[in-house]
Amino acid sequence: MNPVNVSGRAARLIEVAAEQQLECLIVSDRSNIRWLTGFTGSAGTLVISGDHLMFVTDGRYTNQAEQQMSAAGVEQFEIVTRRSVAEQRAEISARIAGCRTGVESSVIAHDEWSVYASAANVVSSDSLVRQMRRHKDSWELDRIRRAANIASDTLEELSDMLIPGVSERDIRDELEYRMRRAGADGPSYETIVATGSVNAASPHARPTTRTLEDGDLVVIDVGALIDGYHSDMTRSFVVGEPSAEQERWFDLVLASQSAGLERIEPGVSATAVDAACRTVFEEAGCSDLFTHGTGHGVGLDIHEEPFIGSTSASILAEGDVVTVEPGLYRVGTGGIRIEDLVVVTATGFENLTSLSKDSPCPQLLRTI
Amino acid sequence: MNPVNVSGRAARLIEVAAEQQLECLIVSDRSNIRWLTGFTGSAGTLVISGDHLMFVTDGRYTNQAEQQMSAAGVEQFEIVTRRSVAEQRAEISARIAGCRTGVESSVIAHDEWSVYASAANVVSSDSLVRQMRRHKDSWELDRIRRAANIASDTLEELSDMLIPGVSERDIRDELEYRMRRAGADGPSYETIVATGSVNAASPHARPTTRTLEDGDLVVIDVGALIDGYHSDMTRSFVVGEPSAEQERWFDLVLASQSAGLERIEPGVSATAVDAACRTVFEEAGCSDLFTHGTGHGVGLDIHEEPFIGSTSASILAEGDVVTVEPGLYRVGTGGIRIEDLVVVTATGFENLTSLSKDSPCPQLLRTI
Repeated sequence: MNPVNVSGRAARLIEVAAEQQLECLIVSDRSNIRWLTGFTGSAGTLVISGDHLMFVTDGRYTNQAEQQMSAAGVEQFEIVTRRSVAEQRAEISARIAGCRTGVESSVIAHDEWSVYASAANVVSSDSLVRQMRRHKDSWELDRIRRAANIASDTLEELSDMLIPGVSERDIRDELEYRMRRAGADGPSYETIVATGSVNAASPHARPTTRTLEDGDLVVIDVGALIDGYHSDMTRSFVVGEPSAEQERWFDLVLASQSAGLERIEPGVSATAVDAACRTVFEEAGCSDLFTHGTGHGVGLDIHEEPFIGSTSASILAEGDVVTVEPGLYRVGTGGIRIEDLVVVTATGFENLTSLSKDSPCPQLLRTI
Repeated sequence: MNPVNVSGRAARLIEVAAEQQLECLIVSDRSNIRWLTGFTGSAGTLVISGDHLMFVTDGRYTNQAEQQMSAAGVEQFEIVTRRSVAEQRAEISARIAGCRTGVESSVIAHDEWSVYASAANVVSSDSLVRQMRRHKDSWELDRIRRAANIASDTLEELSDMLIPGVSERDIRDELEYRMRRAGADGPSYETIVATGSVNAASPHARPTTRTLEDGDLVVIDVGALIDGYHSDMTRSFVVGEPSAEQERWFDLVLASQSAGLERIEPGVSATAVDAACRTVFEEAGCSDLFTHGTGHGVGLDIHEEPFIGSTSASILAEGDVVTVEPGLYRVGTGGIRIEDLVVVTATGFENLTSLSKDSPCPQLLRTI
């Protein structure tokens, strides 16, 4: 399996920083560090001064950082190992002393910010790396695609579990176990299995011991993780025969999701995609039942730029990987959400989610 | 299953805050919020002004907060729902305006701190709730005990997997799956299964596809989660017959761990426990192979107060739940760590980890 190659990323970041008159950068966000260096550990701070990369960590991670940064093709770097957080911050302060320094002010705790603010002219540079991370290269897309396929295949394989007597937790447990057995490093996030007229009405419900009953709506939101990259998908089902209302909701959500997907191409605003989804519900008089955002970027974080909602300022660009996931929810009925993960291409998009979504009946999945 | 009862906790916090001349408190840490209110969601901020509790969250969590805070016995509270983070912060700023306000400065991002600092006289009150959380009540101990039992029983059940050809990931997958099937909400943290002369030499290794070989050392660090409460344990094994060196290491680590446990009682300093463990290794001339801290508190967080290490300032008190987990690590040999979870009692401690630790041979576990 070819390893991640990060070469060139730090150099591009340094160019962008220079355009903003930043002499130094402190990168604290774990996903940003991983994207720039290949380092996967849980402790350490990357300091960029001029074109020099210094990674400050504790003794647990010295060898790992050395190995991973070399293997990932980081051009030149220095590892500084200090035992305590206070010593690490002192090293960083010495390096940035007197410089105009960009710091991730929405990530870094106030205590740590205060230390650097007494050594340098610190300013917020929150979005620099995050914006660069939007564009996925082929290595990243390969990971996301594999993660998406594992989630799709596993959910298809388990669709015959959607029968009366099986609990939400039963389904969650099998999904997460079998995704790992299929090669995932783990679930991409806490798998949602929300069933029935109450639980399925909550978009972010956690699996409970509730068991499926005939006629239930079932919302399953599941993803896999490969080399730090996430996938994200949702399918909704009916146990047994759908009622007329369930059929109508299903058709509406599918139409809404299709309308959103149809808008996806470079240069289109995130608000236009959001509006396309909402308009279908508005015309049906049920837009108040769509209670969350339409989508979000996916990569090293499960929620990242660009976000797709009514107040988003983002314009879609080639290489963005985003979800489109409208839904309808009402206590008493339950909920339906349909979510695909797509990558924006030069001319439109490629859908990374292979599992059929044309029927609310789980038994029909296998025939497609 | 009786629900959590948090009544009285906020009142005690308000007393402590008043002693420190704090008129308001902003609680941002998720575990602190859960401990004070019973709320388990992922977004929201608790604001205490005088004896008034205001919980500020977004629309996804209004009903959940209302239900959970009522069920948990929060005496009096107000839920304020605002859609955007900016609107939520504005509400909080209005509430604390002009007050001397304690903020969790090691938790809260600098951006958020800045908003409150322009509205009030904000000071750091990081440790207030964390220190109160040290003392576990009987409801909390019941959860931790059940989590510890599930992890112990599952590891015992799987000890016959420790044979050549099985991979680290195979063992991890089965452990986490079966803990859930036994009633855990999930694993307590990323399960460690570290094997052989290289992987087992890293105290915090992640499971790989490496398969067990005859003569391997195997370090398994696993815990379960129940109602937000964690357990934590480590056992070390040899595949096949232990070598003389492996036997010696095992005996040393067991002696070190026993020496640490023997010191545990109210009033003893964390450094004394740490020193008891280290002295065994020093006398054997191998203290340089013990490369991490001796232990930590466990509760709603897997790592919390009190920490047990050479620079810890904590004094153990009744109700503390802590790990004692010395180990030896060297590339070429591998590693051995033995970790129990104990609760400090009025006269000493109770060991919450039931699984035998007297033999490095997995096949002997079942006979004890």
